Amino acid sequence: MSVLDVGVAGELERHPLLRAAKVRRGTGDLSRGPAMSREEAARAVMAGAGVAEELLQSGGVDLLITGDMGIANTTPAAALISAFTGHPPEETTGRGTGIDEATLKLKVNVVKEALELHSPDPEDPLGVLAQIGGLEHAAIVGVILTGALYGIPVILDGVVSNAAALVARALALHSAGYVIAGHRSAEPGARISLRALDLPPLLELEMRLGEGTGGLLAVPLVQAAARTLAEMATLEEIGVG
Amino acid sequence: MSVLDVGVAGELERHPLLRAAKVRRGTGDLSRGPAMSREEAARAVMAGAGVAEELLQSGGVDLLITGDMGIANTTPAAALISAFTGHPPEETTGRGTGIDEATLKLKVNVVKEALELHSPDPEDPLGVLAQIGGLEHAAIVGVILTGALYGIPVILDGVVSNAAALVARALALHSAGYVIAGHRSAEPGARISLRALDLPPLLELEMRLGEGTGGLLAVPLVQAAARTLAEMATLEEIGVG
Repeated sequence: MSVLDVGVAGELERHPLLRAAKVRRGTGDLSRGPAMSREEAARAVMAGAGVAEELLQSGGVDLLITGDMGIANTTPAAALISAFTGHPPEETTGRGTGIDEATLKLKVNVVKEALELHSPDPEDPLGVLAQIGGLEHAAIVGVILTGALYGIPVILDGVVSNAAALVARALALHSAGYVIAGHRSAEPGARISLRALDLPPLLELEMRLGEGTGGLLAVPLVQAAARTLAEMATLEEIGVG
Repeated sequence: MSVLDVGVAGELERHPLLRAAKVRRGTGDLSRGPAMSREEAARAVMAGAGVAEELLQSGGVDLLITGDMGIANTTPAAALISAFTGHPPEETTGRGTGIDEATLKLKVNVVKEALELHSPDPEDPLGVLAQIGGLEHAAIVGVILTGALYGIPVILDGVVSNAAALVARALALHSAGYVIAGHRSAEPGARISLRALDLPPLLELEMRLGEGTGGLLAVPLVQAAARTLAEMATLEEIGVG
């Protein structure tokens, strides 16, 4: 496991698993201005790519799992999913950690305002990330692109990773072929983005966390599928039927 | 793993994992008469119970997974599911190993004829098993009842196990509380029986085999759920939120 700090709004103690690559202390308010600059978005993507590359070059890693921690990060996820799929904020925005009806309305409005303010252009994925994304979304884009570059599957966890996969696909179409939907989060944007990515989720257990747990739960399924394809005898081979 | 022969219509070589408890060589044609006698059904149930009990008493077993092998055994499964849920054969009968449209019609008719011939009474579950069940269905009923007796969860695999769980619940209502749906088979009877049992399947991967593979794939999920309930700290415990 590798924990990458690209944007925590505070200082973190050193830890053997923590890689410090802070781009900035949290993003700006996407409904008032850009979440970050284009250069910051690129740096966060590269930080994610760097961690993935280091893991892959360390040897023995044949699967990557994305996860995230970030306060309020289902808001930029919803905005990204709306920008890349065309679904309105009412459909892509959910309750996240469990907000009430009034806060949900506010959240939908924030996403609407952000889309109106920036008119994000899906043909410019890095620009969209800078306008309405989060630093963790950007870092996960880097992980996905690096997995695809090395031909290594990347299991997504949660709606933040789903949104990042949409951005990655917009940057490099073939990256979508290396992505596996570990599970489908209960967030409404998850269903919309996985459908857009044409990814059937391996698990649908009404989970809402995105820290990698759902991706991790799917690992035995991916391993079993790989072994079935590679090792299982056909009925013909064993002389049946 | 333990393989129990309750009704193979032939001789099997000895094998360390094979337990011989043949009740009869295959069942009778359920559309023409009873599949087996009441006593034979009871013996098959007891054979399944015996294997489960032996496994549980050997120590270290805290989970049972059911599986089956049997030719044409989705036909009695469909008949049992119709008998216990009231859904007509057209809804409970599926393509099994992949039969064509004409054979499917024949299969639906066989199930219809069986139900008309026997008028199975769900209040007499052993009688229903004898009339329209299979020896493997009966043996799995024994495994489920024994799991419930010992307070051990039983993961079901496939539509044959789903049908057996309906019989087990009719015999002992509380047994349904120990049953976990490992996955939902693509057989239409699976959806109907799991809904009747109020069991959300852990996996829905369009699998059709019932030899235990789907149940086995669900084991890491059950283990993770148990560990989450038993070992995971709450936000309060770690001083967050």
